[in-house]
Amino acid sequence: MALQRLINFGDLQDKKMSANSGFQEQATVTPPSGTESGPGREASIEARLLRRMLATLGDPPIEFVLSWNGEHIKPANGTPVATLRLADRNTLFGLLADPTVRFGDSYSTGDIEVDGDLIALVSAVHRSMARVDVGSSLSRLVAGWIKRPRRNTPAASRDNIHHHYDLGNDFYSLWLGETMAYTCAYYPTAQATLEQAQIAKMDHVCRKLRLKAGDTVVEAGCGWGTLAMHMASRYGAKVRAYNISTEQIAFARDRAAKLGLTGRVEFVHDDYRNITGQYDVFASVGMLEHVGRSYYQDLGRIARRSLTAVGRGLIHSIGRNRAAPLDRWIERRIFPGAYAPSLGEMMPIFEPNDFSVLDVENIRLHYALTLRHWLERFTAAEQKVRAMFDEHFVRMWRLYLAGSVAAFETGTLQLFQVLFTTQENNDIPLTRQYMYQN
Amino acid sequence: MALQRLINFGDLQDKKMSANSGFQEQATVTPPSGTESGPGREASIEARLLRRMLATLGDPPIEFVLSWNGEHIKPANGTPVATLRLADRNTLFGLLADPTVRFGDSYSTGDIEVDGDLIALVSAVHRSMARVDVGSSLSRLVAGWIKRPRRNTPAASRDNIHHHYDLGNDFYSLWLGETMAYTCAYYPTAQATLEQAQIAKMDHVCRKLRLKAGDTVVEAGCGWGTLAMHMASRYGAKVRAYNISTEQIAFARDRAAKLGLTGRVEFVHDDYRNITGQYDVFASVGMLEHVGRSYYQDLGRIARRSLTAVGRGLIHSIGRNRAAPLDRWIERRIFPGAYAPSLGEMMPIFEPNDFSVLDVENIRLHYALTLRHWLERFTAAEQKVRAMFDEHFVRMWRLYLAGSVAAFETGTLQLFQVLFTTQENNDIPLTRQYMYQN
Repeated sequence: MALQRLINFGDLQDKKMSANSGFQEQATVTPPSGTESGPGREASIEARLLRRMLATLGDPPIEFVLSWNGEHIKPANGTPVATLRLADRNTLFGLLADPTVRFGDSYSTGDIEVDGDLIALVSAVHRSMARVDVGSSLSRLVAGWIKRPRRNTPAASRDNIHHHYDLGNDFYSLWLGETMAYTCAYYPTAQATLEQAQIAKMDHVCRKLRLKAGDTVVEAGCGWGTLAMHMASRYGAKVRAYNISTEQIAFARDRAAKLGLTGRVEFVHDDYRNITGQYDVFASVGMLEHVGRSYYQDLGRIARRSLTAVGRGLIHSIGRNRAAPLDRWIERRIFPGAYAPSLGEMMPIFEPNDFSVLDVENIRLHYALTLRHWLERFTAAEQKVRAMFDEHFVRMWRLYLAGSVAAFETGTLQLFQVLFTTQENNDIPLTRQYMYQN
Repeated sequence: MALQRLINFGDLQDKKMSANSGFQEQATVTPPSGTESGPGREASIEARLLRRMLATLGDPPIEFVLSWNGEHIKPANGTPVATLRLADRNTLFGLLADPTVRFGDSYSTGDIEVDGDLIALVSAVHRSMARVDVGSSLSRLVAGWIKRPRRNTPAASRDNIHHHYDLGNDFYSLWLGETMAYTCAYYPTAQATLEQAQIAKMDHVCRKLRLKAGDTVVEAGCGWGTLAMHMASRYGAKVRAYNISTEQIAFARDRAAKLGLTGRVEFVHDDYRNITGQYDVFASVGMLEHVGRSYYQDLGRIARRSLTAVGRGLIHSIGRNRAAPLDRWIERRIFPGAYAPSLGEMMPIFEPNDFSVLDVENIRLHYALTLRHWLERFTAAEQKVRAMFDEHFVRMWRLYLAGSVAAFETGTLQLFQVLFTTQENNDIPLTRQYMYQN
């Protein structure tokens, strides 16, 4: 009977079974609702195609319900962490053709409903995909080059950045908290609030850079200007900060004026490629994701020419354990042109430009905490977001935030802070103890 | 008159002058001794060739004396940090043909004598070469591939390691100190003794790895077994340590027996490629330099299969800011088969093997301090070393140690400690504060 229920998945299934060195029961299918499953009852062709697709994703523990015929497709292994209800055949066929993008899109439209925790669901998919992917790094590397994100020429960068960061400061202020810092925070303890953690992040960055009164800083990509203002007000630095987002620069200038920091922080509405002058410190927190790999060496060259002979720099970026394209739904719908590099892929910033990497810290679990805080506030503000945009937008952003929690918790994404200096700089503390003193 | 003295160095000289955007006076030559320099007096052809070679090295501030004709060749720029006396024309021609290797060889034989500080001399050469090299990273990358170090197959590795590490434990104990640790130490302060710093290094490594009683550790390349014994005796770990050096393994086993650690530390006289079993921790301190780039991915694969699902690892290695071959004299005469990778070049250990890099620390200035301590002790023991070997050996090793101080002080070499874990391990402390607690 169990044998009768097995579907022959062809080559793929054979490979999987031999890889597992043994027999493994496949997803069981409950036939159209109201009827009992029994011998001779076959699953629908849709169910069989769905299971085949799920096998390519490593058989995540998810249950599916096909609304049009009431079929329940239970996972091949384990208890389901969530149930996905597919509204119609088109939704299913979209999922079969392009699971990543179409899951995101159909969830956004409501054609896929999720019963269960969204974070647990996406985490389960990441974990099962990681199992399938083991050893296929070359193919993913190739995939990374084929499915390149959009270009990041100065003009394209303006469009890409506008798409995301110019959604309105009112929208972001609903859930980013008063620091308006839209990058990974740093939690001295897991109990810290979002605001405490964002301030701790800025202090952690400033300490790593040994920022002191009178230091000049150039910041490449400054968001709403929070770090630049923090460096000026708390450390006495003189900061010039670059950003191509119109809305963010306007907000930053306004806030700097209100805080009386206009003389010490200058916000320049321009591309990082147009940075001029020489500084003691080069900082870039959360911009590298938008730079594009082909510009990394240029970014390093700009950092090099912007720094004095003993200048220090820090780049803070989402990264990966190995080269792979960003989740395609995220790259298409949320962050056009974005890419999360592996540490090796980041090296063209430093190695050809005579920089010495002093310190790399991976704080991915902090991003999971940060995103949980954002998601919590976003969820509480959903009614307001719906009024600003629409239900589609709410669902899209909910998935983006929840999916990002999952990506950082499963190690699919990393967060690297890279501290560097010029090769000739010997003014380097012997230990990193100084980063951990109050 | 100054113009008359200028030698036309051809293309190379033209490039240099245009790069400097201006006129620059070249090395002045004092004609054969006893006579006053004056108009119409031309430098010898040897002196002119030497100056041409020095220009390709960026004109280091070194004075040369040609013993056979008494000529003094002053540096093109600045006050000389040292004077090199060349014994004969053969020495000069060797230097012209292959400056790096022949300087080392002729210093070792005594055909080059140095008046002045050896460290300052080599540092000056590194600094001037770094100026010339700016921007030519591609050519050096190519050079790195052409001048590949010797292969590191298991058999070749045995020969390479035997060449250096089997010179005799009595020899090494003259200057390594009682810890017999032959890797970069860690100086909590610049005033720490060599012994304090070596113990601090081992504690720093153990803390990074969060080593605790009962943990199982595999060590790839264990030297004289100091770290393995430290992990067992101070942290209660159970350690299996691999090494292919006959002399080192014999010493380590003997010491472990004397310390009553035989049940907790096992020394295996075998190649790291033959590591078996699963462990909580994988450690490799100062072995990567001998692994060879083409084996990095294998090393990572071995680390992966040797670690439990939540295992931690640390690799400590000499490195570089960018890909470049090791100094050719060092690679030929001191460390056959050795290579110091850039951080990017190290990534094939981690990225294809689903490791997550948690922390990279660059402690190059600690290696300069360590080497200064070794050189000091070596110098004090020169008479004994001469009795064990000969004058040639003494001079060769003096240059190797002094040259290495210079390489780390000028940033020509780096020292990276890379802490890593499996992608799925979420048992990661939020901050690195734990590394800095006593």
